[in-house]
Amino acid sequence: MSAPLQPQQFADLSMPRRWLMGPGPSEVHPRVLRAMATPLVGHLDPDFLTLLSEIQMLLRGVMRTRNAFTLPISGTGSAGMEACLVNLIEPGDEILIGVAGVFGERMCEAARRAGGVVRRIDVPWGRVIEPDQVADELRRGAPKIVALVHAETSTGALQPLPEIGSLAREAGALFLVDAVTSLAGVDLRVDEWGIDAVYGGTQKCLSAPPGLSPVSLSPRACEALQRRKTPCPSWYLDFSLLGAYWGQERLYHHTAPITMLYALREALRLVAEEGLEARFERHRRHHRMLLQGLTRLGFDFVVEEAHRLPQLNAVRLPAGRDEATLRRRLLEDYGIEVGAGLGAFKGKVWRIGLMGESSTPNHVHALLGALSQLLD
Amino acid sequence: MSAPLQPQQFADLSMPRRWLMGPGPSEVHPRVLRAMATPLVGHLDPDFLTLLSEIQMLLRGVMRTRNAFTLPISGTGSAGMEACLVNLIEPGDEILIGVAGVFGERMCEAARRAGGVVRRIDVPWGRVIEPDQVADELRRGAPKIVALVHAETSTGALQPLPEIGSLAREAGALFLVDAVTSLAGVDLRVDEWGIDAVYGGTQKCLSAPPGLSPVSLSPRACEALQRRKTPCPSWYLDFSLLGAYWGQERLYHHTAPITMLYALREALRLVAEEGLEARFERHRRHHRMLLQGLTRLGFDFVVEEAHRLPQLNAVRLPAGRDEATLRRRLLEDYGIEVGAGLGAFKGKVWRIGLMGESSTPNHVHALLGALSQLLD
Repeated sequence: MSAPLQPQQFADLSMPRRWLMGPGPSEVHPRVLRAMATPLVGHLDPDFLTLLSEIQMLLRGVMRTRNAFTLPISGTGSAGMEACLVNLIEPGDEILIGVAGVFGERMCEAARRAGGVVRRIDVPWGRVIEPDQVADELRRGAPKIVALVHAETSTGALQPLPEIGSLAREAGALFLVDAVTSLAGVDLRVDEWGIDAVYGGTQKCLSAPPGLSPVSLSPRACEALQRRKTPCPSWYLDFSLLGAYWGQERLYHHTAPITMLYALREALRLVAEEGLEARFERHRRHHRMLLQGLTRLGFDFVVEEAHRLPQLNAVRLPAGRDEATLRRRLLEDYGIEVGAGLGAFKGKVWRIGLMGESSTPNHVHALLGALSQLLD
Repeated sequence: MSAPLQPQQFADLSMPRRWLMGPGPSEVHPRVLRAMATPLVGHLDPDFLTLLSEIQMLLRGVMRTRNAFTLPISGTGSAGMEACLVNLIEPGDEILIGVAGVFGERMCEAARRAGGVVRRIDVPWGRVIEPDQVADELRRGAPKIVALVHAETSTGALQPLPEIGSLAREAGALFLVDAVTSLAGVDLRVDEWGIDAVYGGTQKCLSAPPGLSPVSLSPRACEALQRRKTPCPSWYLDFSLLGAYWGQERLYHHTAPITMLYALREALRLVAEEGLEARFERHRRHHRMLLQGLTRLGFDFVVEEAHRLPQLNAVRLPAGRDEATLRRRLLEDYGIEVGAGLGAFKGKVWRIGLMGESSTPNHVHALLGALSQLLD
């Protein structure tokens, strides 16, 4: 054998205790961890099919939608993004994408690979797309899809959606929204805001482990799927096949990630118990605490106040501080993870997450206390 | 809100105790379940990056390969299949696929969607592809890829690979193998057999939950990737981007499914502790016990003896027995799950899995005892 297995090389799993205050994963509630230790049942077991239906009901509640097609994709948030794009785009279809950071850029890249013709609205990182910019673009001809990132994880900006949703609908375009970082952390009203397709992540404000991406499609988006002239280029992410397993037919497609679905159900139940409004207020409250403390320590917020995400805080460090050294000491000396800047913000900005179970006063106090010592 | 969240509707997670003896998922060792209850660290945490390297070392051992590109895809076995196809195929590339059941058929479907020109070798379900058939096809012109299913989960047949691997190599074709159900259950020698690309599943003989697909690429396959003229149509499954996260660069691509990777590491460690040869022999031993008992009860094996998979037993029921009723009673009265037939075998055949942690004498005795009572 070319590479012999030497079990003695590999010690018992022993991971450090971390305070997860980066851009995700966030911390996971002990009830969710315990749910994952539940022995498995089969993916066609009657009890498991009931669990699937419960997850769908809970997801509809969190997304504020009545969409029948509401289910988690068996992959991370990026898989949800790709699923929406490859199902809604046929080669040559036009898609208008707002780009204000890494995740808008990523949508452009995946849309091009799906054969889409991408039109962009670019704004500086940390800003949001204005309805007027979208209206101008729509006057030049309506694309099939208008796509925006609700909470841009690379900049910490919250993109207002309702007005742009109306513009897209008036133009006859489908409205696609990346809600990976917004879902269950800030207000998201899929039906009321006219969102036709949306994808989220589990490892942000839902506080389940990464590995699933909740998606929802409006009836208009489902009709668009039925009008496709070519098959979806992805078999794994084909919404029509996924819908046949999650819907009435219960047709086997791929083996569902059972344990992750146990986790998602428990995480959604925790959201339901807290209530959406209380959860959003909790995220805002700890954001304000962090804002005050960091400002006192000399940090600057990247995003102007009106568009700041409470759950993801992009900040510039006090002058003269080396971000990599400081970030490493936070991790090594205090077990606290904060996120580095991506792309244009690399080396300049930190992304401090207060998401889901990581949004507590204790997280804020621990971070501020550690920074006070390190900056002293 | 259109669909209010009512937490009281959703009780504590309570799943029945099942004996999983279908075509997967198999049962999961308590150590693996416990690993999944471990609190998360970040996907760029130094300790997590060490864990990724350990998983790669362990996977290379189980796959018997030195391939640098050996890593788990963040999706189920079908995602691994799709990843191999969309990375290796460019539009118009020819792929020769052996079809002897559902999973060969699925490869054809996914290859067509990736723009491949599919040539098929069809054999009756339950049979295997003969080297002569492949040699005949190769004389008509070499395709870019020759693809086979090692263990056809829909029929229980074990496809011999080494001779066909040599034929593919002589013809200058890449050799692609579906090892979803074979990995860690029967002998699989990626390097020795000239396999250029292989994908497995976690929920079969590895006995981890479903949700990851280990893949490995030979240096020849990696060169083929570099010669692509068009980008991989999938951003999520793009091997060049995945390789940059799992390789030296550690470039962020998507958030790794942390908890599933904890599980995979522990499951691989259990395989290493048992040893591959001992594990294969255990699977053969319990297959023989099952074979004897089922034959006594009037069941017929679908696959001829030389090509039977020990871990997946496709059997025809005794004459006059309604398979659906009997299967339901096994589940309801005994908590035992066996698999129904797929496709051409629907309503006629059961698929009895003895995979990984589900391959024990107790599983065999429990099933045979239950069947004796039910058939009495």
